[in-house]
Amino acid sequence: MIRYDRGQDEYKDWIVSESDFNPSHLRKLEAVMALGNGYMGLRSSLEEAYPHAKRNLFVNGTFNQADPTEVTELPNLADVTQIDFLVDGTRFHLEIGEIEHHTRDLNVNTAELSRDLVWKSPEGKRLHIQTRRIVSLAQKHLIANEIKIKALDQPVALKIISSIDGQTTNSGAQHFLNGTPRVYGDYLLEYQQTTRQSEVEVVLASEHRINQSITVDKLMERRKVGFGYNLNLESGESVTMEKFTAVYTSRDREFLDQHAQPLDISSHAHGLLKELTNQSYEEVYLAHKEAWKNSVWNRYNLHIDSEDNFDQLATRFSMYHMSIMTPAHDDRMGIGAKGLSGEGYKGHSFWDTEIFVLPFFTYSNPSIAKSLLTYRYHGLESARKKAKENGYEGAMYPWEMAFPDEGEVTPLYGDIDIVTGERSKIWTGLIEQHITADIAFAVDQYVRITGDQTFLNDYGYEMIFECANFWASRLEWNAQETRYEITNVIGPDEYKEHINNNAYTNYLAYFTLKLAKQSYEYLSSQNENVFEHLKQNINLAQSYQMWQEKASQLYLPEPKREQLVIPQDDTYLDLPEIDLTKYRNQPQPRTIYKDYNQQQINGIQVTKQADVLVLIYLLEQTSLKDDLEFTEKLKRANFDYYEPRTLHDSSLSLSTHAILASDLNNLELAYKMFQKASRTDLGENMQSSQEGIHAASIAGIWNIAVFGFGGVRLTAEGLSIQPKLPKQWSALSFNIDWKGEQLRVNVQDSEVTISKDSSNELELLINNQSVRLEDTITVPLALQNI
Amino acid sequence: MIRYDRGQDEYKDWIVSESDFNPSHLRKLEAVMALGNGYMGLRSSLEEAYPHAKRNLFVNGTFNQADPTEVTELPNLADVTQIDFLVDGTRFHLEIGEIEHHTRDLNVNTAELSRDLVWKSPEGKRLHIQTRRIVSLAQKHLIANEIKIKALDQPVALKIISSIDGQTTNSGAQHFLNGTPRVYGDYLLEYQQTTRQSEVEVVLASEHRINQSITVDKLMERRKVGFGYNLNLESGESVTMEKFTAVYTSRDREFLDQHAQPLDISSHAHGLLKELTNQSYEEVYLAHKEAWKNSVWNRYNLHIDSEDNFDQLATRFSMYHMSIMTPAHDDRMGIGAKGLSGEGYKGHSFWDTEIFVLPFFTYSNPSIAKSLLTYRYHGLESARKKAKENGYEGAMYPWEMAFPDEGEVTPLYGDIDIVTGERSKIWTGLIEQHITADIAFAVDQYVRITGDQTFLNDYGYEMIFECANFWASRLEWNAQETRYEITNVIGPDEYKEHINNNAYTNYLAYFTLKLAKQSYEYLSSQNENVFEHLKQNINLAQSYQMWQEKASQLYLPEPKREQLVIPQDDTYLDLPEIDLTKYRNQPQPRTIYKDYNQQQINGIQVTKQADVLVLIYLLEQTSLKDDLEFTEKLKRANFDYYEPRTLHDSSLSLSTHAILASDLNNLELAYKMFQKASRTDLGENMQSSQEGIHAASIAGIWNIAVFGFGGVRLTAEGLSIQPKLPKQWSALSFNIDWKGEQLRVNVQDSEVTISKDSSNELELLINNQSVRLEDTITVPLALQNI
Repeated sequence: MIRYDRGQDEYKDWIVSESDFNPSHLRKLEAVMALGNGYMGLRSSLEEAYPHAKRNLFVNGTFNQADPTEVTELPNLADVTQIDFLVDGTRFHLEIGEIEHHTRDLNVNTAELSRDLVWKSPEGKRLHIQTRRIVSLAQKHLIANEIKIKALDQPVALKIISSIDGQTTNSGAQHFLNGTPRVYGDYLLEYQQTTRQSEVEVVLASEHRINQSITVDKLMERRKVGFGYNLNLESGESVTMEKFTAVYTSRDREFLDQHAQPLDISSHAHGLLKELTNQSYEEVYLAHKEAWKNSVWNRYNLHIDSEDNFDQLATRFSMYHMSIMTPAHDDRMGIGAKGLSGEGYKGHSFWDTEIFVLPFFTYSNPSIAKSLLTYRYHGLESARKKAKENGYEGAMYPWEMAFPDEGEVTPLYGDIDIVTGERSKIWTGLIEQHITADIAFAVDQYVRITGDQTFLNDYGYEMIFECANFWASRLEWNAQETRYEITNVIGPDEYKEHINNNAYTNYLAYFTLKLAKQSYEYLSSQNENVFEHLKQNINLAQSYQMWQEKASQLYLPEPKREQLVIPQDDTYLDLPEIDLTKYRNQPQPRTIYKDYNQQQINGIQVTKQADVLVLIYLLEQTSLKDDLEFTEKLKRANFDYYEPRTLHDSSLSLSTHAILASDLNNLELAYKMFQKASRTDLGENMQSSQEGIHAASIAGIWNIAVFGFGGVRLTAEGLSIQPKLPKQWSALSFNIDWKGEQLRVNVQDSEVTISKDSSNELELLINNQSVRLEDTITVPLALQNI
Repeated sequence: MIRYDRGQDEYKDWIVSESDFNPSHLRKLEAVMALGNGYMGLRSSLEEAYPHAKRNLFVNGTFNQADPTEVTELPNLADVTQIDFLVDGTRFHLEIGEIEHHTRDLNVNTAELSRDLVWKSPEGKRLHIQTRRIVSLAQKHLIANEIKIKALDQPVALKIISSIDGQTTNSGAQHFLNGTPRVYGDYLLEYQQTTRQSEVEVVLASEHRINQSITVDKLMERRKVGFGYNLNLESGESVTMEKFTAVYTSRDREFLDQHAQPLDISSHAHGLLKELTNQSYEEVYLAHKEAWKNSVWNRYNLHIDSEDNFDQLATRFSMYHMSIMTPAHDDRMGIGAKGLSGEGYKGHSFWDTEIFVLPFFTYSNPSIAKSLLTYRYHGLESARKKAKENGYEGAMYPWEMAFPDEGEVTPLYGDIDIVTGERSKIWTGLIEQHITADIAFAVDQYVRITGDQTFLNDYGYEMIFECANFWASRLEWNAQETRYEITNVIGPDEYKEHINNNAYTNYLAYFTLKLAKQSYEYLSSQNENVFEHLKQNINLAQSYQMWQEKASQLYLPEPKREQLVIPQDDTYLDLPEIDLTKYRNQPQPRTIYKDYNQQQINGIQVTKQADVLVLIYLLEQTSLKDDLEFTEKLKRANFDYYEPRTLHDSSLSLSTHAILASDLNNLELAYKMFQKASRTDLGENMQSSQEGIHAASIAGIWNIAVFGFGGVRLTAEGLSIQPKLPKQWSALSFNIDWKGEQLRVNVQDSEVTISKDSSNELELLINNQSVRLEDTITVPLALQNI
């Protein structure tokens, strides 16, 4: 069972716990309690082995193609976390003997995983076992463990087996050549491994410290090297072992301009361990904790007073995971759909980053947002290549992206099709094309929120223009209708494949063309240098004409029927309907696949995830808002139409619906959706998240709090803040970065107070009223809690 | 604990059992209880998962190089044996709940593995579980399982999860590309996989039968496909599931002359399952049992009356394992040093085959011996290539052999060197060269024992000549000593590397040259066709001269000192000695490596395994016997000298010492060594055999019984039989094939009776007396039991 109430005093609402041990929960908790620092991510497997555990250690940006029939993915490095203890010859684990007490805590404040347990061996000897583990934020190459074992009432013979185990795979896919193991003396292990296709060199070096006298066995198996430490504890005596592991790869920025050799990398690893020689686990932990305080919590200070303390914990959990998954240190790397917490989605970046995760960083840590968008800029050349290969112009971004220069890495096959018995074909890499508009959208948002003109000049314009060029070439002329259309796509709703004129895709393509046009006009008049530079590679004049012409003739599905419903695509509204009750609100998503295959689902009015509603949510925040007249009436009409038809079978879905529900003043529903969204990973359903947490959903928790209840929104007129709290919440406060200023938003007692440190005057919309903010302003909430 | 006494009545002394469950014994028992049929070998992992289990399924002759830094090996196929049961949602395994009763039996007579257990779930529900498993000898592509679960006293909800799991690796080395899973309906699974370098196509298809009504979940993970069967049992009710798995590969003889496509292979697999549609597990089992009776036990009928029934079981265990490991069906395949029972030694063939295993087949099933030697003939071309690459003539056989045309496949690195901390270099592939003489020796033995002149004409002469040509070119002229020498080798004793004039190597090289010379003389006068044919490729006249000349000047280390000790090599007898007590008779071999590294061991009078003693044992059986004057006095002198210096750290060692001890009438020691040798795999040391049984040691059990106590020996005068039973044995009988006749040897009541079915007259040596055998002869034993 997951518990949320173990945090006390300074750690109140900061701790996620497992209170009783259940082997079938291992995989979920490995992901939910994962550690990381953006450089690397480590699943929180227990020290001792269990058959269904899934140990994963990923270093961001080390992609490799395991074999020619598979796509590139983040390889699972050698494991350093498994530490088995033999107690009088019997291997300790929690399915034997007796657990007198067992808790495991992830403290998201200190980013430390700890266990505390009292176990009675089958022979009746009681041990008190405490373990602690961090992936250091202060020293991003460091994993540190501390293990303390106390013989409570009888002497025991103990053997502690600690190794570096390169037998690990990604569910059977082995990314590494046979590595080179090495032992130095009785305490230091090293294992060097090289990915077989991308030739990334990895060095792991583990140093052990033990405060008891021992005899040592040196253990070597294939791809594995370890120590067996034998020792005896008297009754009441304890042993403490620390294991510090240094992880370096040839992809590290340290080796940016060289082809790093294993020897160089190894010397960095040993250098780090040497540096730490005189530091204990506790000291290393304190530096790490301080780094979390300074870099994370002082900045992302979101506070909720809720009837349910879980809400506060959930938002912290959200910020914790966004922090550990994000390669803030390196703009050659993106965010995986499961972060670094599991093998799911192979570490690939999807539109999840731009549409769901990026807003958090754009509004709270713009330099990280810039790094993530720069990653997409690095992918521009391969996006151009993908466009060309598909017969288009400009830049066609890959649906799934790994190495920036590798292009499309979406796999070709998915799960078994229940009708044919064969694996189903995955079409997203070919025809889910809206990503190219999503990225342009994100660039525009980032620049408008941060005012980072430098990014725009260096990277942004070029990305926008090339995305627009793609769309201009992508549009298909329908002579009969005398309009441009976009056929044969997948929209955000992946339950509809090969559809025509997906509203989301068409509108976002339109937005991209308009954005490019406006950017061109601004740039050509304002910055001749950049303009001239870009003209060297892109025929801007010709493009500009195309953007205008094509945008003006692009078919934008208009609200249909009296109900103002925007048709999701050409056929959706005319499809037969079925009773979806059975598939809505299932603990497991995608249960509809047990009754229907993809082709059949294609023919029903059922939506996997927000589609038209995301469109409405996003476009409202563009300069096209008025252009397209998205009225509140239209928003409500579409919400009422699509919400009952949406299964939320994608974890991306709920946050958008929750935010719109809040916009529509349905705070009860919005809060219900917030609760559900914040339990996607953190909740009691132990069958979710085994392959990794859901990055976009985790971001969605913060999004609902800040964009939903906090009412923060970018509008054509600038930043708008219109908080409305659900009745369960009595206060909400958070920080927002806006044009280089950090604003503090504090909602409490039916008032919202906005303050900032500088005295530069800012213009804001609060509750739709334009106000000028110097240092602090307080206004009553527009909508009172009911 | 292993029990040997569970067999009753017709299965008395046929059953190896595990009586209580211990998770640390899993790997050993997987190997010891392995199933197989020569086509494939399957480790006997329990159905339910345990963290330290090692599931292996190998198909003979399907070698692959997992990655360019490793050598080729037998790849571990997808697993079909893991079948987990959820009992009211809790996964059944033996570390939880309560075991009321548990036995697991390997019946080596019927080659069936079975379990019978009563288990009480943690919730207090008692289940009776029975499982049976065969790898069919009647249908070599078939693995069949039967699982029966009975709810003893309360109703249970059961979920049976059965899959084909391609996530398996060889300890982390993945040999297969991502495979193709497929589901047919609710009962049939298929998984196709292809080795990544050698492009062997593998198809596994598993059909399930269940005698209860079920609902089915179709499960798919990466490289894995399965069913989850949900059902309910009332109290007292049971369910039986049968799982038949067909295994085919593109290396099968069925596809000998074509490049088999997965589709062809798949259709064979489905064809077999279809054929078996109307057969139950019991019926398939009965056909399998009948095949074992006819092909194995009726032929290898070795019987012992011993004070210790274990002796009888051990020899049956030996014949069982030799039968399951040997690819009798295909002369393109050899025997691995661990058979097909584990990843150890990678499925490679060593001299173990020719010197230790082959004699069993030569004397009891000559057509299999022929097939195994033909495998070496197929390797002749690559042996020629190896010779050329090393600057020699003729054929230089690889120390380790996999695909016949692949040449040397010995790995380059071994375990960690305790002094340097790095992996030690493996030199055997370069300088352990006696294999090339061992093969010539085995060819000669085979032909002399079977009289198979056809083999000699077709393959044998060519092998002998080319082996001799290698040795002729390999010898080095020592001008000072005016003799040929062989420097820088490893002899059978691998604790001595880079030594000069290893007696075994020099004498066997001499034997090979003499054998070639004699063969030339015989052939040139007797069979012009073959002679002319061979002359086309080999300059026989020139070779003949070389063989004579070099043999006559080759240095053969003479017995030194008054004690008649043959020096193992140039320096051995002068090396310092240490007290070896600590390292002799250890339960674990190679403990000396904990105190010394290879270089240090090189400098001590310590021998890993029989070296000079094998030499004496083998040469006595050649036509060179008198030539070299190996007297009994010399045999005793060398035994007395080397036995105390031999650690028996190789499982190859004991059988030779035991046979010689028997020759020297030290029957007490011989029997002690028999006991020890027969416990190498089958004994109570649960730390041995985890990576597979020891093929040569297992053959050694039979060898000690037949060549030691049975006194069977090939001499220059023909077959010699001189039985002497240890006092613990009151009778011994066995079959021997001699020149196409099957002899029955029966030792009992101080007499030996030899009989055969035909009435052709044979000349034999019995107790060193020449006798003529028509159908039966009885003579008193030369040496009475004391």
